[in-house]
Amino acid sequence: MTYTTISHDLDDGVLTVTLDRPDELNSFTVTMAEELERTFREVNDDDAVRAVIVTGAGRAFCAGMDLTADGNVFGLDETRDPGLADMDDLDDETLRGVRDTGGRVTLAIHDCRKPVIAAINGAAVGIGATMTLAMDARLVSTKARIGFVFGRIGIVPEAASSWFLPRIVGLPTALDLVLSADILDADAAVAAGVATGPHESDDVLGAARALADRWTKGRSPVAVALARQMLRRNAAQSHPVEAHRVDSLAMFHTSIGDGKEGVAAFLGKRAPEFTSRTSRMPAFYDEWIARDEG
Amino acid sequence: MTYTTISHDLDDGVLTVTLDRPDELNSFTVTMAEELERTFREVNDDDAVRAVIVTGAGRAFCAGMDLTADGNVFGLDETRDPGLADMDDLDDETLRGVRDTGGRVTLAIHDCRKPVIAAINGAAVGIGATMTLAMDARLVSTKARIGFVFGRIGIVPEAASSWFLPRIVGLPTALDLVLSADILDADAAVAAGVATGPHESDDVLGAARALADRWTKGRSPVAVALARQMLRRNAAQSHPVEAHRVDSLAMFHTSIGDGKEGVAAFLGKRAPEFTSRTSRMPAFYDEWIARDEG
Amino acid sequence: MTYTTISHDLDDGVLTVTLDRPDELNSFTVTMAEELERTFREVNDDDAVRAVIVTGAGRAFCAGMDLTADGNVFGLDETRDPGLADMDDLDDETLRGVRDTGGRVTLAIHDCRKPVIAAINGAAVGIGATMTLAMDARLVSTKARIGFVFGRIGIVPEAASSWFLPRIVGLPTALDLVLSADILDADAAVAAGVATGPHESDDVLGAARALADRWTKGRSPVAVALARQMLRRNAAQSHPVEAHRVDSLAMFHTSIGDGKEGVAAFLGKRAPEFTSRTSRMPAFYDEWIARDEG
Repeated sequence: MTYTTISHDLDDGVLTVTLDRPDELNSFTVTMAEELERTFREVNDDDAVRAVIVTGAGRAFCAGMDLTADGNVFGLDETRDPGLADMDDLDDETLRGVRDTGGRVTLAIHDCRKPVIAAINGAAVGIGATMTLAMDARLVSTKARIGFVFGRIGIVPEAASSWFLPRIVGLPTALDLVLSADILDADAAVAAGVATGPHESDDVLGAARALADRWTKGRSPVAVALARQMLRRNAAQSHPVEAHRVDSLAMFHTSIGDGKEGVAAFLGKRAPEFTSRTSRMPAFYDEWIARDEG
Repeated sequence: MTYTTISHDLDDGVLTVTLDRPDELNSFTVTMAEELERTFREVNDDDAVRAVIVTGAGRAFCAGMDLTADGNVFGLDETRDPGLADMDDLDDETLRGVRDTGGRVTLAIHDCRKPVIAAINGAAVGIGATMTLAMDARLVSTKARIGFVFGRIGIVPEAASSWFLPRIVGLPTALDLVLSADILDADAAVAAGVATGPHESDDVLGAARALADRWTKGRSPVAVALARQMLRRNAAQSHPVEAHRVDSLAMFHTSIGDGKEGVAAFLGKRAPEFTSRTSRMPAFYDEWIARDEG
Repeated sequence: MTYTTISHDLDDGVLTVTLDRPDELNSFTVTMAEELERTFREVNDDDAVRAVIVTGAGRAFCAGMDLTADGNVFGLDETRDPGLADMDDLDDETLRGVRDTGGRVTLAIHDCRKPVIAAINGAAVGIGATMTLAMDARLVSTKARIGFVFGRIGIVPEAASSWFLPRIVGLPTALDLVLSADILDADAAVAAGVATGPHESDDVLGAARALADRWTKGRSPVAVALARQMLRRNAAQSHPVEAHRVDSLAMFHTSIGDGKEGVAAFLGKRAPEFTSRTSRMPAFYDEWIARDEG
């Protein structure tokens, strides 16, 4: 399977996905959306990958939707005018031209069984900014610029960013970032809580790599995948008893799996050798994901 | 329509609402609640207003419920003793004397189609503090004092503040502010994340005005209204797919509306001229608001 | 009723619960879970207690699950393999060996009618860390260490910590703390927003005591219990109208109860004498708790 807008590089378990249209500042297209969504769906069952890094080729991270494309830049089917009730079945094929393409990517990142880290090397505006909100960390280089600039052209934030952004920076900062539509430099992005760093321009990819290793090297792949989903999903439930239901099952399954080895290694003062694989998640996992997504 | 407890001043699209009982430190009454609720409901359809500022006349912002009023200061019908099930239909007329008046105001602020900014010029305690939590920003002057003082008189925080406050300052700080019932000075309020500033006393209204302009001047009124509601509502859903459903519709409607002009103006390197009006929100909006509040 | 793993000390309304297995660094066992759960359930109806402090005997707070115990350290019934649907009825006796024991404790803390304060005097790792997330404040001494170390042994965070932690520190920090499995020293724990302090080692219990007094001394017990639950439960609802329903009832009940005395005392410039008791919560309270946990 070939990619035309992104490139893949797998090195010792870490997949680096490079947004790879440097002459267009890696601006986002419907094709890029499809290639990113496919990447994050396929990596779930790929046991050779333990973490994913996303960065940009050249001097930008992603300069937003490619507004220079011919015609309907958002890929919308303007003949349809759906209501909220029509959106209940997102698998409906006739909705293809209505569903926000950025959201298809961020939902795939949210569902991913591996941690995903943004190494923001330059300008990240519009969908270039919102796609990173679904990732587990946003590392900025000193040259990074982050802007939720939708309001400048009369549109709204997308890619489910209204779910993610307040969970990252709190509601007041989220409102200000979106309503002001300001473009933040690296220091301002860190001060606002959007990102960590800044790192020297040459170092941001290395820092992302080090973080990927710190989070996943030598760790149980299934325990990492479960913990990541638990933090994302359980905190969004209306009562901690919902977390308790999932906790109990996740603890049960890891305790009779990699946890046995983990405890034995701890007591034996040796490194554990975990054998679980995200291509074979525990039975309750699919049930949980399906119920959660209603 | 006349107001007896507040005053209105509309200047170049920004409506300043002044709590206007300076001899009583702008303390809150049932009449003030009704006048504020009406203001925030009516401004939705008023296309001449792009943002709202709330401030206080004289030296206070709002010193809380007017405890010196004769009789039942909370306006409660003490002959009723409802249960939670009775509260399912809040439109039930017999509940009029049971529903918290502060909450009627903050729900109207939450639903507002325009950004609402508090310019806190002095003491804001009790409902004077909680009413600002539903607003989009709280700017304090050096003379501001903010206190969630309910515990001091044996009552509880109201005005849906238990929904808003943890989203603004996080759960641990929210618990401390409410359980301690401390009155914070301006610096402490900023440090706690409740407000921004402090601004010099003469400058807080000007700063609020500048922020209102930064958020709304030259912007698409419908895109602003949608983005504001998306950040408030979508983050409270249990899964980002709910944001995706609304994002898709909001992006669709703005992209075929003001967004076309926005992209054209961006490519033509000129200022956009948006034509949308909040008196005519897209069809999905009412359906969304109704379902969300269901 | 005797306790074998914890000890109780009641002094002027503040119950100090000491994790009391100092030779085992107060490591957690199934018996300790049962004794803690019982403590936090029984304190609800004990009108002699206005606040609870939890600390550790000796140099540790709680060094996590006792991994040196014989056999199945998590107390799991490995013959069962439940699915998510099986967890719908947590009272099912056959689930006893599957439900996470830490979660039974933190749910009891969450439901508690009294504020609960952690005085973290030393190492708090694993369940020693997660149990404190359900409490209302975490005060650390300079000797405290906090670690969500589950990933090191191939298991997942439990005790409903995936619900609590992002509400305390935000999603990005929660992901980093859990995925890194780092052990934070006192300064790092404060910087991450996990705890407040640090206090000198001899002072952390005194600081917790002072906070308990600041929150509860001279206050209405029912108003404190309601406010605590409102902040925990209402912010987790999908819309502020849910807070408004509960606010209205809580304000109604306190206004015709301790609130009458509170207003009279305020106007009379004297200290109030509140008479409510958490052993007799208002009628709507049970209905609310049951519906919320439904």
